[in-house]
Amino acid sequence: MENFNFYSPTFFAFGKNRESDCGDLVKRFGGSKVLIHYGGGSVVRSGLLDRVKASLDKSEIAYVELGGVKPNPRSGLVYEGIKLCKEENVDFVLAVGGGSTIDSSKAIAAGVLYDGDFWDFYQGKLITEALPVGTILTIAAAGSEGSPDSVITNEDGMIKRGATGDAIRPKFSILNPELTETLPAYQTACGITDIIAHLYERYLTNTKDVEVTDRLIEGLILTMKTEGPKVMKNLQDYEARANIMWAGMVAHNNIVGVGRSQDWTSHDIEHELSALYDCAHGAGLAVTMPAVFTYNMSHDVMRFAQIAVRVWGCEMDEEHPEKTAMKGIEALRSFLISIGMPKNFAELGAKEEDIEKLAYTCCYGKGNGSGKVGGFVSLMQKDVEAIYRLML
Amino acid sequence: MENFNFYSPTFFAFGKNRESDCGDLVKRFGGSKVLIHYGGGSVVRSGLLDRVKASLDKSEIAYVELGGVKPNPRSGLVYEGIKLCKEENVDFVLAVGGGSTIDSSKAIAAGVLYDGDFWDFYQGKLITEALPVGTILTIAAAGSEGSPDSVITNEDGMIKRGATGDAIRPKFSILNPELTETLPAYQTACGITDIIAHLYERYLTNTKDVEVTDRLIEGLILTMKTEGPKVMKNLQDYEARANIMWAGMVAHNNIVGVGRSQDWTSHDIEHELSALYDCAHGAGLAVTMPAVFTYNMSHDVMRFAQIAVRVWGCEMDEEHPEKTAMKGIEALRSFLISIGMPKNFAELGAKEEDIEKLAYTCCYGKGNGSGKVGGFVSLMQKDVEAIYRLML
Repeated sequence: MENFNFYSPTFFAFGKNRESDCGDLVKRFGGSKVLIHYGGGSVVRSGLLDRVKASLDKSEIAYVELGGVKPNPRSGLVYEGIKLCKEENVDFVLAVGGGSTIDSSKAIAAGVLYDGDFWDFYQGKLITEALPVGTILTIAAAGSEGSPDSVITNEDGMIKRGATGDAIRPKFSILNPELTETLPAYQTACGITDIIAHLYERYLTNTKDVEVTDRLIEGLILTMKTEGPKVMKNLQDYEARANIMWAGMVAHNNIVGVGRSQDWTSHDIEHELSALYDCAHGAGLAVTMPAVFTYNMSHDVMRFAQIAVRVWGCEMDEEHPEKTAMKGIEALRSFLISIGMPKNFAELGAKEEDIEKLAYTCCYGKGNGSGKVGGFVSLMQKDVEAIYRLML
Repeated sequence: MENFNFYSPTFFAFGKNRESDCGDLVKRFGGSKVLIHYGGGSVVRSGLLDRVKASLDKSEIAYVELGGVKPNPRSGLVYEGIKLCKEENVDFVLAVGGGSTIDSSKAIAAGVLYDGDFWDFYQGKLITEALPVGTILTIAAAGSEGSPDSVITNEDGMIKRGATGDAIRPKFSILNPELTETLPAYQTACGITDIIAHLYERYLTNTKDVEVTDRLIEGLILTMKTEGPKVMKNLQDYEARANIMWAGMVAHNNIVGVGRSQDWTSHDIEHELSALYDCAHGAGLAVTMPAVFTYNMSHDVMRFAQIAVRVWGCEMDEEHPEKTAMKGIEALRSFLISIGMPKNFAELGAKEEDIEKLAYTCCYGKGNGSGKVGGFVSLMQKDVEAIYRLML
């Protein structure tokens, strides 16, 4: 195990009706004037926005609001949010929505206290200062409610990039599984896939002797394997929603990823797909993961065989562990298809003729010039092209 | 799953040589004059205390020191520590040691800011204010490095009781697995047993639909099952020590215990043993757990069968799940014996003739007058007596 720091000082308020605590929580964490940031109409239609405002009113917290966050959140709205916060002297950003809304809120929170262009943070500058952020989560997926990360798509070129910094870790996150019950089946499955991806990205490591985090990751994927089909069968299954929601946070606040190298190849390769085709991130990951894992399997067959046995119930083939490893990848693919995820480029709306461009942007678009991606296996453009071809 | 709050704002610095960061960390969390609190001579002999002082000197942090913490830490030293802190205007308590030292430090930290007798907190008063506490952990066991809890033995009657409150959650904890390598085999095994107990106490729940926390707990016990024997074979196995050390923290900061009722029967019943006979807490738990679980098994056979299958590798007997459940308890008992733990009253130095007194104190000694213990099954004095008899 490698040396590490772990610091996750987010207050989690979990369960039914917890959004009614948001006024108290904003006050507790020092807010007096809030930007309520949200996405589309569902937050308004469901009455959630009214309940949030009622709680803020009760705690005598002032607020302004900015809706309109889209999936794969855009830089344009972030600039708008920064301007609004500065004009209105906002001192706290409250995200009401899923990962996109939270990520957009984090970008705004960082941008308000920064003299330059907020996009600098998405080009590699560490975020060391930001307005405090709180979240009311409505989608179990991105794990942004407990993470120091944010992903934004720059409309100038449709480039999707991430930024990080402890300053944007939420001060509090309210997780009410009831709020996720209205999410349609497809988005629910996308969320489950995203959570599984966060776990695989940590599982695929070159660090030896990481049994404790291996076992925790396996436990969380097993949870997805049990609870995922339950919620797909009954979208109003509160208990399954609750298990998935907590697993989604634990999967991504990094308590299960400490002290080990991580991968993030699937995310890097997927980001190009959702940036270019505006497909759902989870759907893109469902197609990307089996391809990446198949391509990288030979790098550490025993690691893929281990997860095949421990999570997917495959029998260990001692003579041909690569067969076990492959069966585990196939089991993952079947699981993702079973919950309604796409299985190839066509179902995703991606095009074969874009592969070279996708691979080039993936490898060189970050401005680092190294041309390499991947923490588990170091991949060049030709490798990434080959992986995209496996998705055809 | 039940509604819950989870808030664990402790900064964890994990890995080799991390004690050299303690000066910086004390400063970061607002300390300017520290009480260094520790136990016996090993902290001095190993040079750890000198390294801690060097780090504090480097950060220009003043300090006074108080050694002498014993296992099952006593109230007498707590009073001494409170007095010293007040006289010396100490504003930060730094624990260098295992759970006993940390618990004693927490008691001192709470007592300094309280006008009454610190023992009030151990009679049920919530701790809402305390000096900040930091820890440098030398034993993986109690989980006190990431918990809001403290257990102290009152010398007036040798009564062992717990107190709690977010105010005594450590601001930072330094976890260097190297520091645990000098721990003898017996104490190492006691630590492993304590960690397993913290997991079972959370596993034994009456809350339905808690797959995510079930799976996380199982993953941590599986880690003990794999890493425990490695470290018993080679006490200097850094990697096994590292896995156990992180598991010990995760097992007890409650991220795996949220949203579910918990048990704590084994701890309550064991506390009487270590209070009266001054045996190691872990050793007491090794004898107590199988007895408690055997007595309580019929309350929820399927829960015991589930852990038997998922953790102890037992085959599920669909017709007679109680057989599977019992096999799991036997597997736990065999595991604990295999790492050198005692198996009965005699090996623990406990006496049959004390059983009535032990059971009475366990049920009525907390001053609550209810005469009941246990979160999983509600037990009366006669039940507790029967459990002690199972340990003969």
